[in-house]
Amino acid sequence: MGNFKGHALPGSFFLLFGLWWSVKYPMRYLCRKNKHVCYLASNSGYRRLEIIEGIVKAAFALIGMTAEQFVPDGPHLKLYNHEAKQWDHLMNWQHSTMYLFYGISGIVDIIVHITPAVPLAMDRLMLAIAIFIEGFLFYYHVHGREMLDIHVHILLLVAVFGASIGSFLEIFFRGNILLELFRASLCILQGSWFWQIGFVLYPPSGNSEWDQKSHNNMMFITMCYCWHYAFSLLIVAINFAIVSWFLLSGSRLRGECSNHEPLSYKTPVA
Amino acid sequence: MGNFKGHALPGSFFLLFGLWWSVKYPMRYLCRKNKHVCYLASNSGYRRLEIIEGIVKAAFALIGMTAEQFVPDGPHLKLYNHEAKQWDHLMNWQHSTMYLFYGISGIVDIIVHITPAVPLAMDRLMLAIAIFIEGFLFYYHVHGREMLDIHVHILLLVAVFGASIGSFLEIFFRGNILLELFRASLCILQGSWFWQIGFVLYPPSGNSEWDQKSHNNMMFITMCYCWHYAFSLLIVAINFAIVSWFLLSGSRLRGECSNHEPLSYKTPVA
Amino acid sequence: MGNFKGHALPGSFFLLFGLWWSVKYPMRYLCRKNKHVCYLASNSGYRRLEIIEGIVKAAFALIGMTAEQFVPDGPHLKLYNHEAKQWDHLMNWQHSTMYLFYGISGIVDIIVHITPAVPLAMDRLMLAIAIFIEGFLFYYHVHGREMLDIHVHILLLVAVFGASIGSFLEIFFRGNILLELFRASLCILQGSWFWQIGFVLYPPSGNSEWDQKSHNNMMFITMCYCWHYAFSLLIVAINFAIVSWFLLSGSRLRGECSNHEPLSYKTPVA
Amino acid sequence: MGNFKGHALPGSFFLLFGLWWSVKYPMRYLCRKNKHVCYLASNSGYRRLEIIEGIVKAAFALIGMTAEQFVPDGPHLKLYNHEAKQWDHLMNWQHSTMYLFYGISGIVDIIVHITPAVPLAMDRLMLAIAIFIEGFLFYYHVHGREMLDIHVHILLLVAVFGASIGSFLEIFFRGNILLELFRASLCILQGSWFWQIGFVLYPPSGNSEWDQKSHNNMMFITMCYCWHYAFSLLIVAINFAIVSWFLLSGSRLRGECSNHEPLSYKTPVA
Repeated sequence: MGNFKGHALPGSFFLLFGLWWSVKYPMRYLCRKNKHVCYLASNSGYRRLEIIEGIVKAAFALIGMTAEQFVPDGPHLKLYNHEAKQWDHLMNWQHSTMYLFYGISGIVDIIVHITPAVPLAMDRLMLAIAIFIEGFLFYYHVHGREMLDIHVHILLLVAVFGASIGSFLEIFFRGNILLELFRASLCILQGSWFWQIGFVLYPPSGNSEWDQKSHNNMMFITMCYCWHYAFSLLIVAINFAIVSWFLLSGSRLRGECSNHEPLSYKTPVA
Repeated sequence: MGNFKGHALPGSFFLLFGLWWSVKYPMRYLCRKNKHVCYLASNSGYRRLEIIEGIVKAAFALIGMTAEQFVPDGPHLKLYNHEAKQWDHLMNWQHSTMYLFYGISGIVDIIVHITPAVPLAMDRLMLAIAIFIEGFLFYYHVHGREMLDIHVHILLLVAVFGASIGSFLEIFFRGNILLELFRASLCILQGSWFWQIGFVLYPPSGNSEWDQKSHNNMMFITMCYCWHYAFSLLIVAINFAIVSWFLLSGSRLRGECSNHEPLSYKTPVA
Repeated sequence: MGNFKGHALPGSFFLLFGLWWSVKYPMRYLCRKNKHVCYLASNSGYRRLEIIEGIVKAAFALIGMTAEQFVPDGPHLKLYNHEAKQWDHLMNWQHSTMYLFYGISGIVDIIVHITPAVPLAMDRLMLAIAIFIEGFLFYYHVHGREMLDIHVHILLLVAVFGASIGSFLEIFFRGNILLELFRASLCILQGSWFWQIGFVLYPPSGNSEWDQKSHNNMMFITMCYCWHYAFSLLIVAINFAIVSWFLLSGSRLRGECSNHEPLSYKTPVA
Repeated sequence: MGNFKGHALPGSFFLLFGLWWSVKYPMRYLCRKNKHVCYLASNSGYRRLEIIEGIVKAAFALIGMTAEQFVPDGPHLKLYNHEAKQWDHLMNWQHSTMYLFYGISGIVDIIVHITPAVPLAMDRLMLAIAIFIEGFLFYYHVHGREMLDIHVHILLLVAVFGASIGSFLEIFFRGNILLELFRASLCILQGSWFWQIGFVLYPPSGNSEWDQKSHNNMMFITMCYCWHYAFSLLIVAINFAIVSWFLLSGSRLRGECSNHEPLSYKTPVA
């Protein structure tokens, strides 16, 4: 959807998931490390949570697909315009396709935690594929647009392909907190960058548009992207700190600290 | 072979192999996981199967090479046309070369399962090389053609290089069901895409050809490629489900379930 | 900063860190291997050293950022020039951003060695990100400049992305001496190349400038880059040799050699 | 050296090393696997061999550098022509630089097997760097030449960067026979391709030169490159078979087979 809302909607989805991941993974990591008794550390609790996450993901994808298809100027499931002899609303169809793969990823998330027959790491492989498809479609999406428009979308690809590679590595290094936080930070970056794209290409306040051909604007946008990532890293760090403080003080209050070994510095492997 | 059949033939080969892999690997994975007594789980049975697979692969490659060489407008093993002072039927020769490497891969499949001297993982390395060579030749193959023609072939490279990297990783992670299913899904994608290329570039029903320069067509084809992959993933998933259901009900019928531990949810590593 | 000092300053930072690493890592490696009793081999000593390194890194980054902002012709924290209706001093802002990420990396170095809650490998991930951001900004930095100017900066990217990949691998292979020395050598290369860029683009001695469009100059510069790396490898080798000789002779002098097994040839794994 | 000999010389070096590796690694692999008593299987024997290999490599590099510098139309160590105010014989200097890094790699080979202080895997890292530098220089080497000339050199880069990545992986998977044979096959490919380049660009028999702008020639050369690789794989396979047959029959003759377990089929991991 070539307007502000069409970028704000997926941006919010990504932000929500990124923020959730930046809370979930540190919580699980710290619970396990300190042998805390918490909901996330138990396997059945964790599994239930993952299933809910999968349902939410699939629901978001369904909302996105429906929105793309049935907005007033959408294709309404019509792919080919026989009168004009050309494809109809290809942009919306491409966006629907992106949502479709995230939907599949959500369904796979649910399946792997319900059926023991399916290998667990399948969810990470499917996530890597879904993210890759998003990047793949974006890459060919911007063909023939203006310089700044192309540039803001191409910058997005760095986060997209980074997250895809990270997810793929998680197949082999499942449960590696660093890869998980890396994915969370890139997800937040994607989310905030979608909002930024909306503000740059379709200023909602009715301001004058950005000069699409200015070399200066392009230089600024590149730098701005890095600032978004610094901001995203900061959020992940703050969430990690909050979770860590919360778990530590919680266990102190309940006097559980005496029952298990306290937070201690592990000797580095190196 | 620049016609419909020349794309349908390799497409069928790839489809057949992809479908077979999407049955073989889940069967082996589930047999092993549940300690089923099945043909695929025994080493000698599995080895015999792999040898047959290698023979079929080599036979297909031989058929492909022969077809490319001895079709009426083929080179008939003549490489250089001395009268016209130029290379003869280079397209056919390039296709023959692609088949050649798949043939070598088939022969290596046979050898590693016959001779204990040769390291087992050699089959995956050779497969990775064969797939890479296919992509490498395709990359230079399309030089100087029309936009849509180039685009449909370049899209293929995503599946090709993906499968090549996946096979290379299997050298180090042999027997990883995820890499095997990933390879199977990309193989099916390749197969169905070859058919799609045939339909786009050489419509068999005598319909009007596609506009090779239309930006709209290019956008549609990119999206269509993703749909093929979604379709391919669906097939792999269905095959997995069928195999899983078949093994489970089979063991129930024969009352074997009481002799070994039933399908149970393994706790996640993470 | 588009002058000689603006390249000499970061060059010196990188040289200093590269040289320090080429001493620190061999020392730690050899101490551990020979079970030497040395400051670096003890965990608390090593941790203290890492914290100091993090502080120095963060301090350097702060110096760099301050210098970029408050040089006479700098932006003085002003981002947008409302009179001229354009972005102000984007070059300096981009350099500040690069320093910012190294600053974050320094802070993370400190945190992971102070707090046991944070996973240790986070420092390598953050370093990989900081180096990647440097390369990413450089890549878009040179847009629209002269051929030789672009070339000397693009060459730098080989070292930058090499170091970034190396650091990323260290997440999984922490303490691998080869990756550490590889990183050190690339860091020295970056440092000496920054000096070289300064000499090529802004000759300090007031000599005539280099011809920016000469193909010959470009060929020479490419080769010169390789010589810098050969030189960098030599320095790492010499430092390794000095550290090795120092530790060996030191232990001999103190008569410690009798207490632990001497340097011995380990049988190769292969 | 822009003539036939200048390509035949390095080609012969690479061929020699590739052939030697395709004998050495299978011999070592099979000796170890079958617990043969052979010179290569003993650590001291293997180490001595590696040292000799390093010396030969360094000697070849020295010969190459000397030849590049002191051929009649060479630079004779003169880098800058002050009269013409330009760089002197840059081609020869670039080739010397390539040889230099292989020389360093040879010296490192010697050092790691003499001194126990240096980590063993350093030889593979240095080899990966030397091969990468060769590719890096080649990449910028061909700037501004004719189409076919560029193409034959660019094709070489596939083998070069493949070998470089393979060697880098050997740091982590040392002694993996597949990576070693992969490297050997790419080395033979490089060697035979250097000869091919010589024949294409400087036909020694005084034949008419190839048409440098023909699209047909380019297509043929790409395919020809694949044939060279098929040929290279064949040689590696034959050498493996000969070594395998030799070791087996040798042990039979000496009646050693009764003392150790015979060649037996290991069950596949998958």
